Amino acid sequence: MDDVNVGLVGLGNVGMGTVGILAETGEQIALKLGFRLNVRAVCSRHADLKTLPAGLGPVFRTNDWRELVSHPEVDIVAELVGGTSTAREIIDAAIAHRKSLVTANKELMALCGAEIWDSAIGAGINLAMEASVCGGIPIHAVLREGISGDRITALLGILNGTSNYILTEIESKGGNFDAVLQEAQRLGYAEADPTADIDGYDARSKLAILAALAFGEKITPSDIFTQGIRRISPVDFDYAHRLGYTIRLICAARQTPAGLILSVRPSLVSNSTILAGVQGSYNAVWVRGAYGQDTFYYGRGAGPYPTGVAVVSDLMRVAREIRCGSPERVSPFAHERLGEYRPIPVTLQASPYYLRFRVCDRPGIIAALSGILADKRISLDAVLQLPCDTKHDLPFVITVEPTSEQAIREAVEKMSTLDFLREPPLALPMEGSV
Amino acid sequence: MDDVNVGLVGLGNVGMGTVGILAETGEQIALKLGFRLNVRAVCSRHADLKTLPAGLGPVFRTNDWRELVSHPEVDIVAELVGGTSTAREIIDAAIAHRKSLVTANKELMALCGAEIWDSAIGAGINLAMEASVCGGIPIHAVLREGISGDRITALLGILNGTSNYILTEIESKGGNFDAVLQEAQRLGYAEADPTADIDGYDARSKLAILAALAFGEKITPSDIFTQGIRRISPVDFDYAHRLGYTIRLICAARQTPAGLILSVRPSLVSNSTILAGVQGSYNAVWVRGAYGQDTFYYGRGAGPYPTGVAVVSDLMRVAREIRCGSPERVSPFAHERLGEYRPIPVTLQASPYYLRFRVCDRPGIIAALSGILADKRISLDAVLQLPCDTKHDLPFVITVEPTSEQAIREAVEKMSTLDFLREPPLALPMEGSV
Repeated sequence: MDDVNVGLVGLGNVGMGTVGILAETGEQIALKLGFRLNVRAVCSRHADLKTLPAGLGPVFRTNDWRELVSHPEVDIVAELVGGTSTAREIIDAAIAHRKSLVTANKELMALCGAEIWDSAIGAGINLAMEASVCGGIPIHAVLREGISGDRITALLGILNGTSNYILTEIESKGGNFDAVLQEAQRLGYAEADPTADIDGYDARSKLAILAALAFGEKITPSDIFTQGIRRISPVDFDYAHRLGYTIRLICAARQTPAGLILSVRPSLVSNSTILAGVQGSYNAVWVRGAYGQDTFYYGRGAGPYPTGVAVVSDLMRVAREIRCGSPERVSPFAHERLGEYRPIPVTLQASPYYLRFRVCDRPGIIAALSGILADKRISLDAVLQLPCDTKHDLPFVITVEPTSEQAIREAVEKMSTLDFLREPPLALPMEGSV
Repeated sequence: MDDVNVGLVGLGNVGMGTVGILAETGEQIALKLGFRLNVRAVCSRHADLKTLPAGLGPVFRTNDWRELVSHPEVDIVAELVGGTSTAREIIDAAIAHRKSLVTANKELMALCGAEIWDSAIGAGINLAMEASVCGGIPIHAVLREGISGDRITALLGILNGTSNYILTEIESKGGNFDAVLQEAQRLGYAEADPTADIDGYDARSKLAILAALAFGEKITPSDIFTQGIRRISPVDFDYAHRLGYTIRLICAARQTPAGLILSVRPSLVSNSTILAGVQGSYNAVWVRGAYGQDTFYYGRGAGPYPTGVAVVSDLMRVAREIRCGSPERVSPFAHERLGEYRPIPVTLQASPYYLRFRVCDRPGIIAALSGILADKRISLDAVLQLPCDTKHDLPFVITVEPTSEQAIREAVEKMSTLDFLREPPLALPMEGSV
């Protein structure tokens, strides 16, 4: 059968990882597909200066992506530049040229995935985006193929490796947030501007894509309630451990009678769940189905080679479909058919909560706090105070029985005016299971 | 687009689970596929007596699978009868009738998967077998699509739910093996004849399929070194926990310079690995790739609905391929191309070992045992003895540094003649990671 030719736009970490895998495993890929997959063209700002691995055959190099997209021998364009402006132009141009597409672009697919997929179907090309979420975890193949026969009721993920690395460092070494973040930046685990990672926006884009695939609704990332990890301190892990929990940045999507509830926020996670074992920069996704019950997927969230595997697997899939003459027919962003997403306020969701206070000790504190909880009809579960050598900045914890986020917010707002508090209370939901 | 019609042979647990899901999610499936998937015919010994769920439309019922396979309106045959004789006839007949196939048959696919796949390709039909291994875990979609671009170097699995249930019951409740097995049989978690599960043969068939998919070699199940869990006792968990490990029935496939080494046997698994957290009847697969590094997959191993999800997902996949006119072109049992499996003796593999003895206490025991280890050039790592109130049947443990299975076997054989031993030593490999 004829070879299939690939053009890669973007030779950063993921691009070079992808080219490396294609160069080293060309024989294996040809055996698995029944034909060869060639890197026929590459584009980057300094494409002529990049050292490509041996064994690729003749490669057309350019720093103008238009030349690559319109190259007559390129069958599949791999968009590996990221961002939403040039990337969108590349994708639109590829579709206009009837080139099939593989993309690793989470931000763009979270924002415009449904639209891009519709134009791909209109143009009769193939499109794949495994690398856009959780690089090393084949979660797209799982949701689109592996468990497509199930009806998913909930999906929980640890989708940002940087924040999971920071949280597990605080957990294991006890450093405070700022010190651990600085060390992570020094080691290259966190960006110079860490906002997207630690404030939850990166995770939010990924959740938007996964929830769209899992529930068939069109999701606007900015509709998702998002809270970062800046306020998590070593003392929170001490209390969480005492309660049989740990703390992770949890991306959650749950089907409820009111509709789909989405959130990204640090949460207590029971040690009895397999999600609690996710350490360092690993990512994980836990899916609950109405029929298949719980399944769990775990792997590297990023990195040139793990993400490169996702790109190469997608290239193989698209190449196979091209050779079979089988273009995309149904969008995985099935919003028009499975339902339009109505953003349901996270405030409707009920769960047990962990409330951590830092107070200047004096009589009457518990009475004041428990009075406010009682006013909001919130049932107190436990009061926990670990030994502490100061009375001026004393942390302690109240856990409460399942209650709505709305009631918790109102209680926290009212508590924040109390003069013995050194900072507003920290309220985290407690996840026993999906 | 035209509907696709399914005929199911076998209305046992998996068959009824499959029919139930198809009846309840027909609309969702039609939206995902762009056409309907109908149950057009069913076959079982007493098909006329089975109560099928409402909403299926007209269903042809027969107790003769030949009538179903040759039914002109059946596009896909789902073989859900199990076993290797009638199932093989059904599959051969379906292929002869140019019907596409979905099978949940692990034993048959482990024995004859490569051959069946070749005849399916020859006949130009589609074939899928997600349900044949780890019912609820979409491991086929992962290996065939999701991480197809990686080069897998090792695969470790907990593939038998019954034995994992028994081991975790012994671990958590401390009962001895026979008592726990009886209780499991009473509760329906173990069969009246439990041999296939507890002696590792069921797990062996599953490993044969997964290793074939992961490494592209043709594997004969009986070539796989297989050892069951009958000798594991509560005291082994006490010692394992003291060492920071637990015990699981581990199916392992590792690519080594000598070739692929396969084994099914109880092993110590470090608590620092996510594999150690697999409880009860759950299944799990851990894959290490040269590029994607570690990924991990977890879910229900069996059950009418989890396995039904795998069958329905396969039916959707095959239906999509039929409608695209894209028959199977490359077998996942790629033995002729990726390599012929030469069974490598497990005795070549090196790892640390746990050796548990039950002795009648007297002076000189450690000297005798450590002398034999020294003779075989095996380095002793630790000697461990938990408190015990009898000297007549005293368990204790020696752990040794990485050594070959061959050396351990020779040492164990020599030790077995020592008159202070109450039973032959139990030797288990210790898995720190994949």
